[in-house]
Amino acid sequence: MRMSKKRDRNCPDPALIIRSFICFKETTIMSNNVSEHKAALFLANGCETIEALTVADVLFRAGIPCTKVSVNSTPVVVTSHNVTVVADTAIDHLNFDEYDMLILPGGVPGTPNLRACAPLMKQVVRFHREGKLIAAICAAPSIFADLGLLSGIRAACNPTVEQLLLDNGAELVKEKSVTSGNIITSRAMGTAIPFALAIVEYCQGREAADKLGKNILYYQ
Amino acid sequence: MRMSKKRDRNCPDPALIIRSFICFKETTIMSNNVSEHKAALFLANGCETIEALTVADVLFRAGIPCTKVSVNSTPVVVTSHNVTVVADTAIDHLNFDEYDMLILPGGVPGTPNLRACAPLMKQVVRFHREGKLIAAICAAPSIFADLGLLSGIRAACNPTVEQLLLDNGAELVKEKSVTSGNIITSRAMGTAIPFALAIVEYCQGREAADKLGKNILYYQ
Repeated sequence: MRMSKKRDRNCPDPALIIRSFICFKETTIMSNNVSEHKAALFLANGCETIEALTVADVLFRAGIPCTKVSVNSTPVVVTSHNVTVVADTAIDHLNFDEYDMLILPGGVPGTPNLRACAPLMKQVVRFHREGKLIAAICAAPSIFADLGLLSGIRAACNPTVEQLLLDNGAELVKEKSVTSGNIITSRAMGTAIPFALAIVEYCQGREAADKLGKNILYYQ
Repeated sequence: MRMSKKRDRNCPDPALIIRSFICFKETTIMSNNVSEHKAALFLANGCETIEALTVADVLFRAGIPCTKVSVNSTPVVVTSHNVTVVADTAIDHLNFDEYDMLILPGGVPGTPNLRACAPLMKQVVRFHREGKLIAAICAAPSIFADLGLLSGIRAACNPTVEQLLLDNGAELVKEKSVTSGNIITSRAMGTAIPFALAIVEYCQGREAADKLGKNILYYQ
């Protein structure tokens, strides 16, 4: 408790520090959960910054380990808005068997760069075949379509690649995020939070996802 | 136009590449505008990843140059969710006179780390005094409160620091983003897009901000 309202404005109020750490504890408390899930999030040069990192942020809060994987030969990636991000590892060092979900952000040229990564494409097809979760947002669902995984499947994507999904037999849905079996798809940077929350819901149920959505004040 | 539906799934569909680039052009077309504004966005260790980078992303799309400034001695910053980001520059190399707005993301210990950066605090007070825009989200509006800038001012912040704003005379508003004169404040990671769009609205007007919000499919 402060004794006086008058104080030196050049020095931070100690209460600011204390309350900030309370804030930190409250927003990350779920990260202490032991998760049965483990996500691999793939970053290519030109990936959309927020589509990629919102997933990492929300899964961290949900207590779901999320490894950021560069598809370059080093962990350094430059996103589509010229943000340099250092991923946790590079794809050549990844043991896919440690993971149960693969997540692809959109962005350009991030999406074609991911599509051109043959080792990743092979694993996307395998994960899908084995019933493990694959998720993509914005232009990246077109990769699933191009691999032949969306035929007869309800899916969402960026308006600019809708025809590609239709050409490959997808049932196009203009919702912020769509979960169809073990495939989650979403539409754009502005739907990155619903996309990430759909992944949380897939892993932990609706109640956990809603609680997290309220915690970050996406739902108010 | 494809001549046949049957093709080798191991090779990307050329249409994917072409449509992706159309997507890129559409989402970044506004960045060709010549802007009269220039933003400095400050990153400290422990800043909230999405609160920081959503601003950079949205301003890029709006064509407003946004320099990501580390308050460390180097451009390298590690965010509150352990993402390593390389900023454009470090604060010691910044000429504040080139900018007309200063933006502070929240996160912990990002917020106290920003508060402890005396050269930045001096400039925040100066910018405010000179009528230039200052903006903060989540826990960071508590910095403005602590500097004595929010007395009698409508402002929003994270629930965990509301008492600090009230103690310093702010009129607390629980809206996603609040513009009060040359001060914009917002509440949390889940309100980062409304916060960034409020900055766009401040610079370019409501119509431009709404158009951008629809472009990223935040508004549908």
